[in-house]
Amino acid sequence: MFRLIHKDRKSKARLGKLKTAHGEVNTPVFMPVGTQGTVKTLTNAEVIECGAEIILGNAYHLYLRPGLDVIKKAGGLHKFMGWGRPILTDSGGYQIFSLAKLRKLSDEGAEFSSHIDGSRHFITPEKAIEIQQVLGSDIMMTLDECVHYPAARDYVEQSLALTTGWAERSKKYFLEYREQSTENREKKQLLFGIVQGSTYTDLRKKAVRDLLKIEFDGYAIGGVSVGEPENLIHEVSAYTASLLPEDKPRYLMGLGTPPDIVEAIGNGIDMFDCVVPTRNGRNGQAFTPQGDLQLRNAEYKEDTRPIDEKCSCYACKNHSRAYIRHLFNTEELLGLRLVSLHNVHFYVKIIELCRKAIRENRFSEFKDEFLKIYNKGGLN
Amino acid sequence: MFRLIHKDRKSKARLGKLKTAHGEVNTPVFMPVGTQGTVKTLTNAEVIECGAEIILGNAYHLYLRPGLDVIKKAGGLHKFMGWGRPILTDSGGYQIFSLAKLRKLSDEGAEFSSHIDGSRHFITPEKAIEIQQVLGSDIMMTLDECVHYPAARDYVEQSLALTTGWAERSKKYFLEYREQSTENREKKQLLFGIVQGSTYTDLRKKAVRDLLKIEFDGYAIGGVSVGEPENLIHEVSAYTASLLPEDKPRYLMGLGTPPDIVEAIGNGIDMFDCVVPTRNGRNGQAFTPQGDLQLRNAEYKEDTRPIDEKCSCYACKNHSRAYIRHLFNTEELLGLRLVSLHNVHFYVKIIELCRKAIRENRFSEFKDEFLKIYNKGGLN
Repeated sequence: MFRLIHKDRKSKARLGKLKTAHGEVNTPVFMPVGTQGTVKTLTNAEVIECGAEIILGNAYHLYLRPGLDVIKKAGGLHKFMGWGRPILTDSGGYQIFSLAKLRKLSDEGAEFSSHIDGSRHFITPEKAIEIQQVLGSDIMMTLDECVHYPAARDYVEQSLALTTGWAERSKKYFLEYREQSTENREKKQLLFGIVQGSTYTDLRKKAVRDLLKIEFDGYAIGGVSVGEPENLIHEVSAYTASLLPEDKPRYLMGLGTPPDIVEAIGNGIDMFDCVVPTRNGRNGQAFTPQGDLQLRNAEYKEDTRPIDEKCSCYACKNHSRAYIRHLFNTEELLGLRLVSLHNVHFYVKIIELCRKAIRENRFSEFKDEFLKIYNKGGLN
Repeated sequence: MFRLIHKDRKSKARLGKLKTAHGEVNTPVFMPVGTQGTVKTLTNAEVIECGAEIILGNAYHLYLRPGLDVIKKAGGLHKFMGWGRPILTDSGGYQIFSLAKLRKLSDEGAEFSSHIDGSRHFITPEKAIEIQQVLGSDIMMTLDECVHYPAARDYVEQSLALTTGWAERSKKYFLEYREQSTENREKKQLLFGIVQGSTYTDLRKKAVRDLLKIEFDGYAIGGVSVGEPENLIHEVSAYTASLLPEDKPRYLMGLGTPPDIVEAIGNGIDMFDCVVPTRNGRNGQAFTPQGDLQLRNAEYKEDTRPIDEKCSCYACKNHSRAYIRHLFNTEELLGLRLVSLHNVHFYVKIIELCRKAIRENRFSEFKDEFLKIYNKGGLN
């Protein structure tokens, strides 16, 4: 299911191939976020044009809207949204703890009130798997509690016990489901476990040990970039990645800026998802190898250059910074589209450059050079 | 500049070709509205994919934002927005009377306060031409006063005198500009006059007579669909069209629904612009040959059919009504894009069908059949 193709000689960076029911994915990989069944502002054709091999969907959001009946009727999430490549779905754990209101947590599961209409819902680990089975995602995630930073050790210990218990039940339910029918088996869905443990290294270690006993198709590092200082993000994820088995994909959830991702690839991470390229794109922030530009700024008013002269995306091939600034200034939706498109394209291309550097055993040099130029910025 | 190619034998519908500096346009033609230098939510590539041969820009909006300096720096509106096909620009008259505040009207021109920041501006007929010269549009419109319905005869008479006086000055300024340099002449910009006169047929007649004396490259029918009953829209525009010379293009400003346009083509109109396909599209209203659908409605919740099974646009080729409804329901911008795209595509295709019917001398039959099926609706 996952093949490790190559390890960079001087860093922990690695190349792999992840086989899913909707095709093979090259790792490291960036998954554009399609929370509600759409990568915000973009068509599937555009997301593919950017080179994206897999996208992320969100069980919590899709369960609430349009609801499972609608997606079941359409024949699953791929058909509902017209996307033929792999999809990873988040279990909803993160949203229950960040978006939903009036949570009541028990060993059994999480009761919460919808952030949309206040309706009450009860999600168990089994229910989270069931939802993702209806969605038909290629990779499902287990339900977990994502603890924000800072958190007292006591709280994290208890939370971890809950998350580990839920992981066990998820796996059990997943196996039972597969045994139920040939059809279920043929969906070839994968299940990833999520390592929590906040910034306590011994708890991260315990979490990994427990999850490895349960055995998952891949392991995600959760509870990172939840309020902690920048250096802890990479310390914790590097440490956790070092504990994970070589022959399974490693997914760092919800990260990050371009330097974050390049850094994490150097720590042996294989998979990423992040709203930054689209969310920040909708705010006018465009990424380039020389750092980022805030296209709303007056300095771009008469700038006839594209966002990035070397970029081959539709926005850069066809439009100037001055035009895009005008679109933001006049609240024209095309502006949000163009910068989102450029940013997703940029994230995918950066990862492609990382892959090339790994293949050529020069990832560390690539990383240093990338960070130096990116962080110097100001070239725009 | 304008060639009449064919006249339908049993109606007033006609086929023509309008030559502009950025290429030839087949008439009848629908011009998608790109008010602020963008057809709302769409890329130029998509507008071209829809088959649009010419778009409309708006002098009032572009003069305020991004301002003439920015567009001049970019080398004109075509280059600024990256659109290589013809552009017609509205003079700003309509916006001064509908959007702007604190207007002070005199023979000299119109003083108004920007709807964006309240800044004061003074636009004369000469200034309106000058703005459009900087924009570099292929077809410029004269400044006029667009009178809303109902209007007292006295008021319309006075307003018409103003509009005719402005038309004369516009033409004079236009000729002077062309004499100034070879470069100016080589821009090959055309200038259209606008027939006003509200619903008073004798005043429409007088307006036409006066404008014909000044001589324009084309004639627009303005002040239609400004609050009057539906039947008056077509009565007034048909009557006005019948007064206009055969060898010049006739442009009905700001109209309308698909039946409006088909009706008006039968009355001898050649050019149309309207925000309906994009504005209504952004509200979830999709047009089909069987009438329109409001995609927000619950009835489409599980409807796996495309908007229109016979349509070849990207939205219909790739997505279901259920999916688009979900996008509207969750406020995803892709929804606005898909329906805008479909609607612009639909408008362009309907006009292409009209052209075919005219060529085959069966426009009246086509019109009757189209209106019958469209107005029956409910097939969706």
